[in-house]
Amino acid sequence: MLETTIAAIGPLDEPAMTAARQLQARMTKPAGSLGTLEDLSVRLAGLAGTCPPPLPSPAAVAIFAGDHGVHAQRVSPWPQEVTGQMVGNFLAGGAVVNAFARQADASVTVVDVGVAAPLPAPEPTDADGNNGLPRLVTAPVRRGTRDLTVTAALTREEVATAIEVGIRTAGELIDAGARILLTGDMGIGNTTPAAALIAAFTGVDAAEATGRGTGVDDPTYQHKIEVVRAALRRHAPDPDDPLGVLASVGGLEHAALTGFVLGAAARRVPVLLDGVIAVSAALAAAALAPDAVGAMIAGHRSAEPGAAVALRRLGLDPLIDLGLRLGEGTGALLALPVVTGAARVLHEVATFDAAGVAEK
Amino acid sequence: MLETTIAAIGPLDEPAMTAARQLQARMTKPAGSLGTLEDLSVRLAGLAGTCPPPLPSPAAVAIFAGDHGVHAQRVSPWPQEVTGQMVGNFLAGGAVVNAFARQADASVTVVDVGVAAPLPAPEPTDADGNNGLPRLVTAPVRRGTRDLTVTAALTREEVATAIEVGIRTAGELIDAGARILLTGDMGIGNTTPAAALIAAFTGVDAAEATGRGTGVDDPTYQHKIEVVRAALRRHAPDPDDPLGVLASVGGLEHAALTGFVLGAAARRVPVLLDGVIAVSAALAAAALAPDAVGAMIAGHRSAEPGAAVALRRLGLDPLIDLGLRLGEGTGALLALPVVTGAARVLHEVATFDAAGVAEK
Repeated sequence: MLETTIAAIGPLDEPAMTAARQLQARMTKPAGSLGTLEDLSVRLAGLAGTCPPPLPSPAAVAIFAGDHGVHAQRVSPWPQEVTGQMVGNFLAGGAVVNAFARQADASVTVVDVGVAAPLPAPEPTDADGNNGLPRLVTAPVRRGTRDLTVTAALTREEVATAIEVGIRTAGELIDAGARILLTGDMGIGNTTPAAALIAAFTGVDAAEATGRGTGVDDPTYQHKIEVVRAALRRHAPDPDDPLGVLASVGGLEHAALTGFVLGAAARRVPVLLDGVIAVSAALAAAALAPDAVGAMIAGHRSAEPGAAVALRRLGLDPLIDLGLRLGEGTGALLALPVVTGAARVLHEVATFDAAGVAEK
Repeated sequence: MLETTIAAIGPLDEPAMTAARQLQARMTKPAGSLGTLEDLSVRLAGLAGTCPPPLPSPAAVAIFAGDHGVHAQRVSPWPQEVTGQMVGNFLAGGAVVNAFARQADASVTVVDVGVAAPLPAPEPTDADGNNGLPRLVTAPVRRGTRDLTVTAALTREEVATAIEVGIRTAGELIDAGARILLTGDMGIGNTTPAAALIAAFTGVDAAEATGRGTGVDDPTYQHKIEVVRAALRRHAPDPDDPLGVLASVGGLEHAALTGFVLGAAARRVPVLLDGVIAVSAALAAAALAPDAVGAMIAGHRSAEPGAAVALRRLGLDPLIDLGLRLGEGTGALLALPVVTGAARVLHEVATFDAAGVAEK
């Protein structure tokens, strides 16, 4: 499944991009006055292969949840069972991601790729559709990763299985009508593997890739950097072997998100990246299929320093920068109206000729 | 009307802000993880005087349109009649502001406070309500300002009348149900008076306050800076006399926006500022009533350098930064979902206790 997915990923369509640039130039606004939105509209056209590109609606968020053996190293002040408890909160509609998804009229799917604790019984399904309660997909590869300070977090087979969960999730959501996918994640301790992935794929030092996650104190932060550094030293992950990198220092939600991004790119549907977990997975996706970057849109600049490192490497500018560091998909959801607006301009704005407006 | 409006503007409500901070701390997310949105939610509570504050919906954009005598000095490459033509485009629903307003489900009201050319006959009203065609309010104070390089742009009486148009517009929109107001503007040449206002109120040099507006070339840009500098030298506007500043170097839409901001603040309704025209008017509003800043939300960081100068002075951080320099209200509309999201969190997100999620 991974090989056929990668084979389906191609470059942006140049004629559609040219058409979008030409249309932008004829619309009733000064050239370039929509800044980043103009480039974004051109990329959306290139991805879709048509101008105007389809509006990115309906939108679907997938929250991949997993636990982490490295939690034993006290890299997070939160108990591990919070991962499963927050999954319960997502399913009950009580988390920030639910509030933002209701506002953006996006569906939410929670995918258990490896939560350690047994999950609470799902709430009965709401009849409201998109504004109702999220769907739970139970696809655990294993009940949390191994401790990456001691051994490889995952086997290559486990990584491949998690990637396939992500590809399949993307395909199902697109088959159900989604025209943009948004990444979400939940996993106490998951900024530690994200930092290790970013350092492994970009070559920056552990200190540059590691942040405070949910807000650790100074001693824990220094310890976390050392944990990342030791893991990189122990495993010496090879960036040219993305599955090997994910196996040695990654996480199940990171691997699933890698597949999710690839799955969107293969179907030429834009994928709006959330924070540091998403962009660490996006590095793995780009290593597997460089053209996948054409489908990626950076939702926001996470407060995690590693996110900025990863975005620079991917050549992506984030749409919003509000100091968010919550994850769950919240930053992607807040950026969604910007993406929709960029596409909408190409559909709805009058040209100088049509509106009878003089040009300079 | 101006005096009673100013008298009605008060400080943010501390108990409501304390309640919002305490509620944020109990919600199922790491403390501070929503970054700017947490502060924004606290300010919205303080403005409303209740926690949670009302959701900022419905939203209403008012686009104040006027022309400028300084256009004769060739500060813009666009012919002056484009102001009226773009008003026609707004009324027909063909401009970017219309596309973004439809997306955000915001009503659009176009207020002619001084367009030089006769306006096109309005299109028949659409029955759709918010998603239909904008309403035109015809309230011209005079058919464009005088050339500020030669004489004062406006009399104090004209400024007062334009401010009252803005106050009245705010009041009418709030009476009709709006729970957030967004600023919009249209006026070929209006970044020149905006730059002069920003330099006058903040004391920065003309070069620091002046930008390229719709995208002027280098010689025109240098000339525009000299026009602003000469106007400031000629009129020596006194920042402690805001009406005098608006009269000597302002514009009718700038004065009306000053009133619009004050009118929102007096009713304790948030006002989402668009770009450089709006923030230059916001400086005048803050000079008239310092507590009005409590009602202001900076929508975006305009590419115009003067906007950043003004926002710094006002102590406001813009919500989005996408290199927009279109005006019309487009930047405010793109930021609206962030404001709504900030308020929504206080309404909808579960607390740790209620969700059964452990705290660190």
